[in-house]
Amino acid sequence: MPGEFDFINWLTSQQKTSELVQRAAGDDLAILKWASKDLLLVGVDQVLDGVHFDSKAHDPKSIGRKAMNRNLSDCAAMACLPSAAVVSVALANNVGVEYAKELYLGLKEAGDAFDCPIVGGDTASWPGKLALTVAILGKSDGIEPVTRAGAKDGDAIFVTGSLGGSLLGRHMTFAPRVQLARKLAASGKISAMIDLSDGLSRDLDHVCRASGVAAMLDAASIPIHEDATAMRRDGRSPLEHALHDGEDYELLFTASHCDHPSAIVIGRIGSGSGITIIEGDQQRVVRPEGWQHSL
Amino acid sequence: MPGEFDFINWLTSQQKTSELVQRAAGDDLAILKWASKDLLLVGVDQVLDGVHFDSKAHDPKSIGRKAMNRNLSDCAAMACLPSAAVVSVALANNVGVEYAKELYLGLKEAGDAFDCPIVGGDTASWPGKLALTVAILGKSDGIEPVTRAGAKDGDAIFVTGSLGGSLLGRHMTFAPRVQLARKLAASGKISAMIDLSDGLSRDLDHVCRASGVAAMLDAASIPIHEDATAMRRDGRSPLEHALHDGEDYELLFTASHCDHPSAIVIGRIGSGSGITIIEGDQQRVVRPEGWQHSL
Repeated sequence: MPGEFDFINWLTSQQKTSELVQRAAGDDLAILKWASKDLLLVGVDQVLDGVHFDSKAHDPKSIGRKAMNRNLSDCAAMACLPSAAVVSVALANNVGVEYAKELYLGLKEAGDAFDCPIVGGDTASWPGKLALTVAILGKSDGIEPVTRAGAKDGDAIFVTGSLGGSLLGRHMTFAPRVQLARKLAASGKISAMIDLSDGLSRDLDHVCRASGVAAMLDAASIPIHEDATAMRRDGRSPLEHALHDGEDYELLFTASHCDHPSAIVIGRIGSGSGITIIEGDQQRVVRPEGWQHSL
Repeated sequence: MPGEFDFINWLTSQQKTSELVQRAAGDDLAILKWASKDLLLVGVDQVLDGVHFDSKAHDPKSIGRKAMNRNLSDCAAMACLPSAAVVSVALANNVGVEYAKELYLGLKEAGDAFDCPIVGGDTASWPGKLALTVAILGKSDGIEPVTRAGAKDGDAIFVTGSLGGSLLGRHMTFAPRVQLARKLAASGKISAMIDLSDGLSRDLDHVCRASGVAAMLDAASIPIHEDATAMRRDGRSPLEHALHDGEDYELLFTASHCDHPSAIVIGRIGSGSGITIIEGDQQRVVRPEGWQHSL
């Protein structure tokens, strides 16, 4: 029966060294040479069977891709360049080495699209469900990182694509907005940014709290994805789906102005706190819903 | 019911910024300023319920400590200084926020002992078992990292403590040998090093393969822990426990010589491949057993 170390030998054969990666997977830790001009950004994100994907419905390669792409999307949120990733995988007992390879090939394919090598990892099998964790390193590479904390009274609020209903499939297949984020941030006019993983209402709330500001949304301006319309059958309106579904992985950002063709104005930052939405001649408070794990 | 973001607020209140950590948890990624004189070492390691700990037997704080300490031990293996960690936790549904806090406090306590802050994380709940993943960043800080690949024909093989039977408790309570590893590596005489997580036979095999050498062990010199003797009841000799049990988290290293009082010679590196052991006037081959996940 093939074991962990056969798999690690296979993984190691996939590794390359580079100017950045002096020694990749195959030792206790990878060794990188970090350029002093670059800020180092680091974070971690996991995908879990039954929460972020369904191992009965989704193939291992697409699960691997999603695990990496969620982290690449975090790099987009900060406008940094993905540089290297380490990966831990907890496999359900007896899924087989081919399944493990497919997971890894999905992770690698997603990373390769952004020149982000996997430089280390940990693979285990257990009497539990499939769980993948990716930790990512990003570099500033000439562009100041954009945080959630800079939104200012009077800024416009933008998104980079239509929202809602990602559960119909886009939550597995999205493309991280790294290049777009870098382009926007390079203009120097972006005051705050986040990627839409938890949902517009929840992620905008994160920005408002971090920046100490309020937000007012214009319902008619929010770009609603056709998937949100398709999901109307559950009794919630397409707008509710766009506000709360999450896993859109578009960028949400604030700026005094922005004329990039992908930037869609959906509201305005004000003083105070909380989120309100104007729909026709009605104004109401939007409570952050979206995705939250209850503990 | 308290949710993920209340917990994150609590976590964020525990964070500090520093010269290294310009912006800690609370954004999409943490922002660090890395000194160019330092190599950046990075790796990831997970602990899983039913494999690395038993959530019915072990309290959450000791589980958190183990998750961090395994990664700190990887830093010891490379002789680097732990600098920052990111953590993902998959909580079984409904374990409660107090349980999550205890896990985190265990992680933090272990990191604090080595001035290694937790700068980011991801917390989720799921209909699965408890899983913790830690990714760690280490810095060379004036000492060249030691890999598995430098062992040379004629080197002596050393360990830093007695082995076997860690399952009786030490696998949860070990202290990572970071300072000792740094002291040994600073001498410049260490040719290869690894921490004993998978077991002496398996980890020595890693070193032999990476270095392209063979090893000969002297059974009488291998320091056997009293726990290995206590576990003799399972029918395996204390020596077998010392060779194969794993999770000792002592250092295994090779050097032409070493007079550090914690360094115990257990054998010698030769040319060729494989591991043999001399016991009395008998010589036999040691097959790497120890811990391996079957896929």
